[in-house]
Amino acid sequence: MNLKKEFTAAIVIIGNEILSGRTVDKNTSTISLWLGEKGISVEEVRIVPDKENIIIETVNYLRCKFGYVFTTGGIGPTHDDITSESISKMFNQKYVYHPEAYQILEKYYENQDFNEGRKKMAKMPEKAKLIPNPKTFAAGFYFENVFVLPGVPSILDAMLPNLDNLIFSGKKILSISIDTPLRESSIAKELEIIQNKFNDIDIGSYPYFKEKPGTILVMRSVNKKNLSLCEKEVRLLVKNSLSNS
Amino acid sequence: MNLKKEFTAAIVIIGNEILSGRTVDKNTSTISLWLGEKGISVEEVRIVPDKENIIIETVNYLRCKFGYVFTTGGIGPTHDDITSESISKMFNQKYVYHPEAYQILEKYYENQDFNEGRKKMAKMPEKAKLIPNPKTFAAGFYFENVFVLPGVPSILDAMLPNLDNLIFSGKKILSISIDTPLRESSIAKELEIIQNKFNDIDIGSYPYFKEKPGTILVMRSVNKKNLSLCEKEVRLLVKNSLSNS
Repeated sequence: MNLKKEFTAAIVIIGNEILSGRTVDKNTSTISLWLGEKGISVEEVRIVPDKENIIIETVNYLRCKFGYVFTTGGIGPTHDDITSESISKMFNQKYVYHPEAYQILEKYYENQDFNEGRKKMAKMPEKAKLIPNPKTFAAGFYFENVFVLPGVPSILDAMLPNLDNLIFSGKKILSISIDTPLRESSIAKELEIIQNKFNDIDIGSYPYFKEKPGTILVMRSVNKKNLSLCEKEVRLLVKNSLSNS
Repeated sequence: MNLKKEFTAAIVIIGNEILSGRTVDKNTSTISLWLGEKGISVEEVRIVPDKENIIIETVNYLRCKFGYVFTTGGIGPTHDDITSESISKMFNQKYVYHPEAYQILEKYYENQDFNEGRKKMAKMPEKAKLIPNPKTFAAGFYFENVFVLPGVPSILDAMLPNLDNLIFSGKKILSISIDTPLRESSIAKELEIIQNKFNDIDIGSYPYFKEKPGTILVMRSVNKKNLSLCEKEVRLLVKNSLSNS
């Protein structure tokens, strides 16, 4: 698939805990599946440490190259949460309290100490717009084509629906999977011939080795008609190969 | 932590199935934890599609910037497996059958059709060295500081021990985690004061929201003595904050 820039996105996962291996990143999958439903294809993901110059360089490059950039992580109350300030600098925007974000937090912490760390979660680029957080009330934000989201998966999951109307949708990316006990190496050549026939379809072949080995064949495209034709050919290949094996 | 270049690494995850969200990448965590034991710190991860120019550009940039690059994915028998050929081009090496890799596969497929796709798994840069695969026999390879591994997690897991003697080890990166029911926002300021005292320690604060909310505080360093001093201060902070809350 070759999609126009406005239907492409990149994800930047910010956080030493992912790089160190302590935590497995689940947000990439969540965001990618959600975007796929809207016809937006994630073309690159980068996982970077909590370092200001790297965050700025990475997000700046990707926001020029792709239609959307989604960041996760680094918008909490502690010293290692530096995403909002970095993005403010990148956009040459003042890093200030967002009045509405501040009010929401002030109310939430009504009976507790509304300390510096908690207030910090209301700071963002001056002209940023809020992404409401129905779960823990510390908002995310967006500015131009950059969407800044939290790292905790359950909070991110709860916030994504608030973005549904902000993403300019393309044609939904359709996907068909066929799970077969065939080894992928037994059908590699024939599969390539089918791939070469359908240049607007991505055919992927993913072997697995559980109790028994097998392969999942995945076809992805925005072209429903061709996808259906391609599926028929792949199913026929699988059927014939199974009866020959 | 600021480590010398030779103790740093990057990982390149190659595969449309990760970008589309269909599959959650587990290899980053596996490789990072294994490298951490050897004192090698993963500084960046990129997830890229099965596209030759992007693979070449990405790996080439990262192999100059960091001590090691590990790639996963794209070394199987099908048309979408283009990593080995891309890496050959990047190194300006012929993309040829590796005699030993070929022999291993020929023997493995003794009683089956040793077809083009299966032979392809023995192709790699002319002067590459093998990384044996005790599980499915299709080898990985390395050339200079680039290590090319498969995408299937169980196969990658089985191959990593074969690299143990090839990685120039630094001081093991030590890690201490403290799990506390405190909200991170209640100790943000005090934690920053401790972080500022210990500049060779990375203190990370990771909130969670399960049945009850809490925070995991992680300290990482190669300096055992300072890590122990830092741990004492963080434990005292947690203890005092819990008795005040």
